[in-house]
Amino acid sequence: MSATTRNPAGPGGVTLLGLGAMGSALAAALLDTGRTVTVWNRTPGRAEELVARGARAAGSVREAVAASPVVVACLLRYPSVQETLGPVAGELRGRTLVNLTTTTPNESRALAAWAAGHGIDHLDGAVMAVPAMIGSREGQIFYSGSRAAYDALLPVLGVWATSEFHGEDAGRASLVDLAMLSGMYQMFTGFLHGAAMVASLGVSASDFAARQVPFLSAMTHGLADYAKVVDGGDYTVPGQQSLDFSDLSHIVRASEEQGVDPTPIAAVQELIARQIAAGHGSEGFPRIYESMRAAGSTAGSDEGGAA
Amino acid sequence: MSATTRNPAGPGGVTLLGLGAMGSALAAALLDTGRTVTVWNRTPGRAEELVARGARAAGSVREAVAASPVVVACLLRYPSVQETLGPVAGELRGRTLVNLTTTTPNESRALAAWAAGHGIDHLDGAVMAVPAMIGSREGQIFYSGSRAAYDALLPVLGVWATSEFHGEDAGRASLVDLAMLSGMYQMFTGFLHGAAMVASLGVSASDFAARQVPFLSAMTHGLADYAKVVDGGDYTVPGQQSLDFSDLSHIVRASEEQGVDPTPIAAVQELIARQIAAGHGSEGFPRIYESMRAAGSTAGSDEGGAA
Repeated sequence: MSATTRNPAGPGGVTLLGLGAMGSALAAALLDTGRTVTVWNRTPGRAEELVARGARAAGSVREAVAASPVVVACLLRYPSVQETLGPVAGELRGRTLVNLTTTTPNESRALAAWAAGHGIDHLDGAVMAVPAMIGSREGQIFYSGSRAAYDALLPVLGVWATSEFHGEDAGRASLVDLAMLSGMYQMFTGFLHGAAMVASLGVSASDFAARQVPFLSAMTHGLADYAKVVDGGDYTVPGQQSLDFSDLSHIVRASEEQGVDPTPIAAVQELIARQIAAGHGSEGFPRIYESMRAAGSTAGSDEGGAA
Repeated sequence: MSATTRNPAGPGGVTLLGLGAMGSALAAALLDTGRTVTVWNRTPGRAEELVARGARAAGSVREAVAASPVVVACLLRYPSVQETLGPVAGELRGRTLVNLTTTTPNESRALAAWAAGHGIDHLDGAVMAVPAMIGSREGQIFYSGSRAAYDALLPVLGVWATSEFHGEDAGRASLVDLAMLSGMYQMFTGFLHGAAMVASLGVSASDFAARQVPFLSAMTHGLADYAKVVDGGDYTVPGQQSLDFSDLSHIVRASEEQGVDPTPIAAVQELIARQIAAGHGSEGFPRIYESMRAAGSTAGSDEGGAA
């Protein structure tokens, strides 16, 4: 079966708006499967390599949108999405818009409302992968929004990464994604802070990593226990390390003693200190969840629309 | 071989000062091996269970110190160490002091100087274990200070956990320990922050953990790559995610949108923003190390006195 038979030009094609590293990887992966791909980028010169591989370069957003029934936006933050798509709402009517631009949950919801108002089928995606992982099953992309669009587009989405549908609330994929990334960046930062602390001993970051990677990896298994305590809502469950004992003032002080900026661990200590000040010092460490959680929210017990 | 033969009373005994959860676990593990153990605690009533298992309870610190050639201090922070040991410096002369109280590196160094001034052999330990792990090989205790004391005490230290000697600088064990714990607490906090973010979707912390634990565990393997970049000192190495792309303002905003306190992720963003403001936005994420490291320090290439 030839590429042309599988993916006839025109109606079956995909348009890619935004040719940064991720947008280019998404376009390239589709070209590799023989699909018809139309590309556009705000600043010219980014399309050449993709055109050499068979992509069609559109001269304008309008032309790019008109070329395909499926339009993928992989731009720089939400304002670019508004600026780029706002003027072509009419052309987008009746087509499917897949937004893979990094947006906050509420921005994704605003885009969904805008799309609904213009008769555009909208699916919002959050990419849990670096560009080099696109085209394999290694990466994950979370989607939320139109279930019908998700089901219809699965053959396209499956080219890029492992796909997962999170529900009709368009902000859901972004929120799960950003929550996971928040933890990842805090872990990365904690490692770099520790590496800065031991540098005064002449310990290289690589030697520190050799100790810290297996330690952190082992410690991830304690997170499920913390989660149980949070879900139970009773931070006095026996067998936990108390907040009084987890007071990290000495780590903040040790960091300062070494001339290392304590900003990230001081932020953790701030959450601990708030709970101790409120009289919860004898309760378990996961109580710092209460320093952060939204007023009135309680951890639920289902993944909602997760597929 | 009877316990008495292995560990004659008197000269071979160990004194334990401080019977919190950790101190009690250390004493109990020694009793389990048939050693002579003398215990003392500032507030009475903590020794009863240990006495029932064969420990001798001392009526004063002075009496406790005089009872054994090896004195272990497991107290609450450095001020307690100063208050408890200061008045009995004379009795400690010629004995070995093992400090397992959590202290900063500089506090450990101050204690070492004080001990040296009073003819006391001093070993400083940092416990990488919860009390329940004491008496197994599962936990780790890092030591630094007197190498001779470490070698002589290995039969005792080996009862508690896997021992590791880090060098003659008494502050070294504490510094490596606190650097590792800083990373651990930041990872824990990142998880709880993420759990608070998805709570608005009705996702339980346990369901979030089921996603986040394997993800974080996988991501720990990227730390060695970051370490290489830090050690190389060149943050422009190709193939890295740039700081501009790692700007986390949208995660901070997403957290605020959900009513979740962004303190810990805002601290990370502060470190990123500082580097971007200094003109390093196109360099890799590990550049935030430069926002924290001590002026003049560079990551070295050896573990110094680590055994």
